[in-house]
Amino acid sequence: MAEYLSRGVFRFNAPVHIESYASVVGDKEGRGPLGKCFDEIISDSHFGRSTWEQAESRFQLEAVSLAIRKAWLKKEDIDSICAGDLINQCTGSSYGLRELGIPFLGIYGACSTMAEGMIISSILVDENISHRAAAVTSSHFSTAERQFRAPLSYGGQRTPTSQWTCTASGAVILSKEHGKSTITGGCIGWIADMNISDITNMGSAMAPAAATTIKRYLDATSSTPDDYDYIITGDLGTIGSKLLKEILQKQDIDISKQHRDCGELIFENDRQDTHCGGSGCGCSASVLCGLFLPMIEEGRINNILFTATGALMSTMSLQQGESIPAIAHLVHIQRVKE
Amino acid sequence: MAEYLSRGVFRFNAPVHIESYASVVGDKEGRGPLGKCFDEIISDSHFGRSTWEQAESRFQLEAVSLAIRKAWLKKEDIDSICAGDLINQCTGSSYGLRELGIPFLGIYGACSTMAEGMIISSILVDENISHRAAAVTSSHFSTAERQFRAPLSYGGQRTPTSQWTCTASGAVILSKEHGKSTITGGCIGWIADMNISDITNMGSAMAPAAATTIKRYLDATSSTPDDYDYIITGDLGTIGSKLLKEILQKQDIDISKQHRDCGELIFENDRQDTHCGGSGCGCSASVLCGLFLPMIEEGRINNILFTATGALMSTMSLQQGESIPAIAHLVHIQRVKE
Repeated sequence: MAEYLSRGVFRFNAPVHIESYASVVGDKEGRGPLGKCFDEIISDSHFGRSTWEQAESRFQLEAVSLAIRKAWLKKEDIDSICAGDLINQCTGSSYGLRELGIPFLGIYGACSTMAEGMIISSILVDENISHRAAAVTSSHFSTAERQFRAPLSYGGQRTPTSQWTCTASGAVILSKEHGKSTITGGCIGWIADMNISDITNMGSAMAPAAATTIKRYLDATSSTPDDYDYIITGDLGTIGSKLLKEILQKQDIDISKQHRDCGELIFENDRQDTHCGGSGCGCSASVLCGLFLPMIEEGRINNILFTATGALMSTMSLQQGESIPAIAHLVHIQRVKE
Repeated sequence: MAEYLSRGVFRFNAPVHIESYASVVGDKEGRGPLGKCFDEIISDSHFGRSTWEQAESRFQLEAVSLAIRKAWLKKEDIDSICAGDLINQCTGSSYGLRELGIPFLGIYGACSTMAEGMIISSILVDENISHRAAAVTSSHFSTAERQFRAPLSYGGQRTPTSQWTCTASGAVILSKEHGKSTITGGCIGWIADMNISDITNMGSAMAPAAATTIKRYLDATSSTPDDYDYIITGDLGTIGSKLLKEILQKQDIDISKQHRDCGELIFENDRQDTHCGGSGCGCSASVLCGLFLPMIEEGRINNILFTATGALMSTMSLQQGESIPAIAHLVHIQRVKE
């Protein structure tokens, strides 16, 4: 059972464990500052398939399969899987995972997908509906550019505020008792729309959603930023991260010491020409599974808030003159007390 | 807490109640055989907005708002909402519901969305994370035709096996104790892909998924079709429904007496030129909320299985030569014992 703290904010009476996790990234991500952290680096952007969409599906399947293998499990041991991605109708997930035969809940939270999947999966485990529940997501630079912006062969100039969609996937497997990291609570985000419509400045569109979710969680748990080793956001990038800290500062919440953004960490922007940093569902998923969960396992950190942010627009909605609604979901992850 | 019956199949120890529900449909659906069942019929396909996508968002907002009003609640009383639709990036939901300020979980299950949302929402209520949880979905003939098939102005000939995407929305509000209908258990579907790639014959692509999910639930609960008043499917239409019964018959399961398909019920195919029946997320959602839940409330039926089916392809995946993966989620709904 969980304890109701406020609307959408909950704490588990007994924490749900992260039994296993895996990260698989593309060539550019592998050459970034976190290159050594990831389980696998795939240098072929097609991952042996004939389309980028099929490649993204394979990234997702590979991340789940690796997480299963790392815990010496079989796919039959997994009772449910929550998955989603950025491709229209979430086909990265449905085609990637169809061969597994695992009860499947498709989710759409744009780049907040990893946190949303971890929330739902942890609840399934806590409710005893799944003995083991997986959550996975992915993104691919080439599928995202083609779908949301312009064909790569068009060679469009990228704006200074733009971010680079990561080719990456991350997967976790949750259970009642195995693993040194645990999910102890979370916050289901609500949609924030600050009337921003610039698709090349997603960090600014998402920062208010992250600020709201982090504040709601701190308020509901009567905690302060100092209670955490890190307060992690998904892919706000350099501009969005600055904005997030400013918004919270105005509400007397200073997260500057604890804040880390996966989009800022995954690339070295100047050297890799990634402008404001990484983005995409796979960005926060792979950095969580490649960097932060291993740090918890090694005992280097004990207590983090993982807040993945998503922008919920489509190409068509922007063409119709709409702004960009955004959302942020938060998962509270703590090391098992020994 | 829930009881684990088999992979993905669960039964609540205490049932979750359906406190309120509402259905809003378009003109053609209103002229169909169920016209009198729906709460609202909107004759303007644009619902007062300038695009069909905005109209679909308004259908969804209207259904949720009506369900809230019918239970004399305020939007602040709702702790979470699960929503999704067929439009790319589920913008029907994100734009439709952004003004509500309710913690939001975006889901993508194509036409299985209503059952998926009810599963997740019922678990949130049972876990005490939401005192009241809503689930909603929608579809719109014109947004779906434009996106999945051809622009309406193209005037393409519809094939004999095709179905008509309903302009409709349905919403439910779940809670611990109010309402005469309850969710007592469910089955999370897994992806079935029988290598069908004809986008104008979706019923056949989805029938195997429905058969698998229904069989899994009957097996796990040691029940037979005779234990239920109705075994309802979402939008298999006439061809898919026939196929479903044949598949189950081969496994010695005869659901011919209990089976009802929302896609078969919502239109009078000959008179309304709808070929194999209705389809779309809004089809099963509106028929559940307009026809079946009122029948339970009135005591005319007591025990149903609601199995919504979804086809998880995209236009691009089919253009790339892929087949259509399908899924079906099941919710077991029973009348409160008095």
